[in-house]
Amino acid sequence: MKKIPVGVLGATGSVGQKFIQLLNGHPYFELTEIAASEKSAGRIYGEHVNWFLDGHIPSVARKMKIKTCEPGLDCHLVFSGLDARIAGETESAFAKAGYIVVSNSRNHRYDPDVPLLVPEINPEHLELLKIQKYGSGKIITNPNCSTIGLVLALKPLIDRFGLKSVNVVTMQALSGAGFPGLSGLSVLENVVPHIGGEEEKMEKEPLKILGNFVGNRIDPLDLLISAQCNRVPVIDGHTESVQVALKEKVSHEKIIESWRAFRGKPQTLKLPFAPEQPIYYFDRPDYPQPRLHRLIDKGMAVSIGNLRPCPIFDYKFTVLAHNTIRGAAGGAILCAELLKAGGWLD
Amino acid sequence: MKKIPVGVLGATGSVGQKFIQLLNGHPYFELTEIAASEKSAGRIYGEHVNWFLDGHIPSVARKMKIKTCEPGLDCHLVFSGLDARIAGETESAFAKAGYIVVSNSRNHRYDPDVPLLVPEINPEHLELLKIQKYGSGKIITNPNCSTIGLVLALKPLIDRFGLKSVNVVTMQALSGAGFPGLSGLSVLENVVPHIGGEEEKMEKEPLKILGNFVGNRIDPLDLLISAQCNRVPVIDGHTESVQVALKEKVSHEKIIESWRAFRGKPQTLKLPFAPEQPIYYFDRPDYPQPRLHRLIDKGMAVSIGNLRPCPIFDYKFTVLAHNTIRGAAGGAILCAELLKAGGWLD
Amino acid sequence: MKKIPVGVLGATGSVGQKFIQLLNGHPYFELTEIAASEKSAGRIYGEHVNWFLDGHIPSVARKMKIKTCEPGLDCHLVFSGLDARIAGETESAFAKAGYIVVSNSRNHRYDPDVPLLVPEINPEHLELLKIQKYGSGKIITNPNCSTIGLVLALKPLIDRFGLKSVNVVTMQALSGAGFPGLSGLSVLENVVPHIGGEEEKMEKEPLKILGNFVGNRIDPLDLLISAQCNRVPVIDGHTESVQVALKEKVSHEKIIESWRAFRGKPQTLKLPFAPEQPIYYFDRPDYPQPRLHRLIDKGMAVSIGNLRPCPIFDYKFTVLAHNTIRGAAGGAILCAELLKAGGWLD
Amino acid sequence: MKKIPVGVLGATGSVGQKFIQLLNGHPYFELTEIAASEKSAGRIYGEHVNWFLDGHIPSVARKMKIKTCEPGLDCHLVFSGLDARIAGETESAFAKAGYIVVSNSRNHRYDPDVPLLVPEINPEHLELLKIQKYGSGKIITNPNCSTIGLVLALKPLIDRFGLKSVNVVTMQALSGAGFPGLSGLSVLENVVPHIGGEEEKMEKEPLKILGNFVGNRIDPLDLLISAQCNRVPVIDGHTESVQVALKEKVSHEKIIESWRAFRGKPQTLKLPFAPEQPIYYFDRPDYPQPRLHRLIDKGMAVSIGNLRPCPIFDYKFTVLAHNTIRGAAGGAILCAELLKAGGWLD
Repeated sequence: MKKIPVGVLGATGSVGQKFIQLLNGHPYFELTEIAASEKSAGRIYGEHVNWFLDGHIPSVARKMKIKTCEPGLDCHLVFSGLDARIAGETESAFAKAGYIVVSNSRNHRYDPDVPLLVPEINPEHLELLKIQKYGSGKIITNPNCSTIGLVLALKPLIDRFGLKSVNVVTMQALSGAGFPGLSGLSVLENVVPHIGGEEEKMEKEPLKILGNFVGNRIDPLDLLISAQCNRVPVIDGHTESVQVALKEKVSHEKIIESWRAFRGKPQTLKLPFAPEQPIYYFDRPDYPQPRLHRLIDKGMAVSIGNLRPCPIFDYKFTVLAHNTIRGAAGGAILCAELLKAGGWLD
Repeated sequence: MKKIPVGVLGATGSVGQKFIQLLNGHPYFELTEIAASEKSAGRIYGEHVNWFLDGHIPSVARKMKIKTCEPGLDCHLVFSGLDARIAGETESAFAKAGYIVVSNSRNHRYDPDVPLLVPEINPEHLELLKIQKYGSGKIITNPNCSTIGLVLALKPLIDRFGLKSVNVVTMQALSGAGFPGLSGLSVLENVVPHIGGEEEKMEKEPLKILGNFVGNRIDPLDLLISAQCNRVPVIDGHTESVQVALKEKVSHEKIIESWRAFRGKPQTLKLPFAPEQPIYYFDRPDYPQPRLHRLIDKGMAVSIGNLRPCPIFDYKFTVLAHNTIRGAAGGAILCAELLKAGGWLD
Repeated sequence: MKKIPVGVLGATGSVGQKFIQLLNGHPYFELTEIAASEKSAGRIYGEHVNWFLDGHIPSVARKMKIKTCEPGLDCHLVFSGLDARIAGETESAFAKAGYIVVSNSRNHRYDPDVPLLVPEINPEHLELLKIQKYGSGKIITNPNCSTIGLVLALKPLIDRFGLKSVNVVTMQALSGAGFPGLSGLSVLENVVPHIGGEEEKMEKEPLKILGNFVGNRIDPLDLLISAQCNRVPVIDGHTESVQVALKEKVSHEKIIESWRAFRGKPQTLKLPFAPEQPIYYFDRPDYPQPRLHRLIDKGMAVSIGNLRPCPIFDYKFTVLAHNTIRGAAGGAILCAELLKAGGWLD
Repeated sequence: MKKIPVGVLGATGSVGQKFIQLLNGHPYFELTEIAASEKSAGRIYGEHVNWFLDGHIPSVARKMKIKTCEPGLDCHLVFSGLDARIAGETESAFAKAGYIVVSNSRNHRYDPDVPLLVPEINPEHLELLKIQKYGSGKIITNPNCSTIGLVLALKPLIDRFGLKSVNVVTMQALSGAGFPGLSGLSVLENVVPHIGGEEEKMEKEPLKILGNFVGNRIDPLDLLISAQCNRVPVIDGHTESVQVALKEKVSHEKIIESWRAFRGKPQTLKLPFAPEQPIYYFDRPDYPQPRLHRLIDKGMAVSIGNLRPCPIFDYKFTVLAHNTIRGAAGGAILCAELLKAGGWLD
């Protein structure tokens, strides 16, 4: 099979680097273009980038010349890790020029004709692409890194028992703020109890993701969500203390079973980045923990633990997801794999 | 004024060390006795203790001989930092022998005739001592380290607006688990989302502390509380994401004003360990933070920030308190100061 | 090819767990036995072990019953991660009973007939096995975790330029102390400038490893080494500030070239755990760093950077090696692979 | 006594904030002016500064208006925490205008007529001020934060036994890099084995500080120093692994005694910021540790431990000093106190 040529927009940033790391050796996609800001353009990636991920820069990327983020790249699909200040316009320009854009930026997430896609949850939202305004070009978005673990944990509960309200308090990793992000002096041996704009995203994005595709639009789910977001001294992996009120009375065992049994289209299609099992439930009350469990199924699975009754809601539990893999670059690559499987990249 | 001779039970442990550190130079109390387990007894404190607090061991303690935790100590009041496995019986024995026991252990907290005391909140609960079963000896307890910041934050809300329910998720410091507590391998760059027995304490203790003294007993407050407790890589200072539903509709400004205006008996009496202001509210949304604010007013004040509306409850905010000072040894010393001011130590 | 059945002694400890993790799916070896202390024996591994490594317990190990550390295990080779208090006798007993013992413990390292093996450096020391006193059983040891990065960095210098003296100051990871090891309260935001017995090992082990096999014994290298060992808040990866005085005057470029060109027998034999390149030299002065480079070549390579002239010695540079992979379980597995390649396991 | 009015240059930066924190309530000095860059000038300090030190902004500073760093400030002495890019010219301008400048910046440290002052070590270097070229204005500099712990540890050895060479490897705290300094992603669970320009300072500054004032100039000490500098995940406190070769053979006990007995002019004069004892030696081999000992004597003392023989040099030991107190703002304030005691501020 001939691989599909892909580019990465914002390739020197933190999400861009993760895209380049994860695309290395991908069975469907071949990195052919690297694009970044004006001041990086023209430079050799391996000489210019301040690579802060573990391990070597993939050799295919090391010698590539950085281009500017403008249509004209020699590829069919672009992954966007662009900063929100420029992502909106740049991604639109690429889509108008006929590119498939899979974006990790927030700008187009609420466009009514743009899917906010989690392949296990709402693959049918891809139908929106048929009415999307960009012609042969398309934009598909990935949710915020703190949203994705939560919605995966909620999906089986909604399908099986109905959900009335959700309360979540996050303990988010530093990598979610990009590089350089927070100063070492601000985060070491400390908690920063505020992340600008994050609570709003967590309270709004799930409604679209979990919404129904009816006619030619997404009907948002009717669900009350309250989020509080904190930054903690963890490199990767967002941990969330979650509470849910369900529409029906249901046993502890049934809830756990609903998580363990959950599978989605990526599992059926055996997509390369699909976790074998999207959700792992741990029986130890002190699990999951970010350093122990963030990389399960290559960072694409969500881990849950410590389900227990709640005096105010019905149940409480802990959720963990890898924010730069499942919650950013890896999640976006899974979206692209789903696009390919659905024939959208032909 | 002649100082009151005091002893510390469990003096080699983490709370015991903090008592010895904080009692150094106290205007009312003079450390005259140090007691610990059988295996430490007979040793010189400064040669035997694995001192893990910052700074030098206070010189008065360094040369004292460690005794066993049995009545016979040459002092009038004992501060107990004993392990819960032995605290119950040992503290009872001291009270029966006529000692005043101010305890940081959980064992006697729910005894109907024992005050669970936060001097700014429920000084009138000391009336229980009149009916306490130990004769001239007495037991007074201090709440759990994660409870105290919460109840101080709630007290003005209850007094002024009435409180229906409270939801709290904690991010607790390592020192709360004592020494050695958690392994460095378990906590560095990690979150441990479970602390045994902690949620139960947080859901129950406030009801007694905030309860009314009626006749000769404490009538617990009718309040719904749900707690989730996490351990994060912070040395000192418990941070809590709190949500409250109030009995009446109240503005943002009024709530903040209720915190800033709050004063209790320790402030009126100008007790040595009383913070000038029990509660500080910060206008920056990313405040309070444990490393920046845990030591305000010598670690005896509670810091609050980021008050904002909640889609499920009425308001959300962040609370911070120093767990080994306000939440343990310092809080207990303040209790003892209140006892002295009330003539209970005469 | 039929796989060789192997056992792990001390399987619940930190090195034992790492053996089990790394042996999973090994092309030569198949885990058939798990052994630990009396109090663990008889329990199912997956139910009993406090697994603190990242990811799941390998499924093959999860259901195995733990045995005691006594000959009678159904395997040919045992990897020992035993505590030094019992490793000496237990390993001797296994060797006497005909087992091949590859040990990570310090006890037999200085036995004159036991190789202290680093496969890239002294594969010829395996000749000692011919005169070893255990009959068909054998003991092979792996060096201390802080030694191995150093000796790999020194080997090309010795071979090419001759070495007069070595000065090393380590900044060692927590995992080197096993589990639970140091308390979180001792290591977070701190440096512990002492590791019992470590400096002695670093000053002595290299002399044997780098020694010459002459006749039937190892003639230790004549080399002056001074070591200072510190513990820093890093999970995995020992960083070392090294200085060397060389026997001849040599350029910066030649030294770097000697590291980059270095290959050993494991590379020639293409052993499964052999790093493609044993030593990577980085041109950035702030590299290597433990979190970025410890996992290069699956944690089996040594990283070096910041070579610069020294006013006292000739050169200074930084060395990094993964202490639980290259410096413990992974290094021991590479030893076993070399044994197999040499026909010692037939 | 009327207090001397002082200003702080670079008051929004990390050293500037520390000056403001430490000057609060000083018995000799009264903060009357706060100056910073153009973009801060005109703003109210408490509203503008991103205060990242623990505790509240001192109330005297909170309401002060920030001025630009130009002569015209209403004070007699200025403490400079300016960035090295502008410190050189700005400090000269202040000196020419008649101000006494006590600087923490590196720019004037090697000016032949400027003292590089450590009050316990070289108070006689203040004689240079008599020949300094600025008229009634003066510049006095403080050494680099990693130098100061080292030179204090060396001074008694030089005086008593003579010193041939010094080898030092540092493990430096984050606060030494200012704010924001290194990214949290770069420092958490990591070591960064390079600090630009730091090794050069450590190898050169001690020679001037420990030099002799002869005639009208400083004759640098003849001493060989080699330094390697690393950044570790510690907030405050530089730990250093040191080795020394002495001019005479001397016992372990004599060295320790030389440290414990050491006193300087600040101790004789009982200056407010003088530590009671400049050097503490600990008998535990795992001491000193930054989190435990950096604040001894209010952060102005140097802690030493683990003296042991060295196979290459004569002795090895560990040194710790608080980098932003003794090594920056606190050290500079002690210099100013010495100036006052010597009549230089009259």
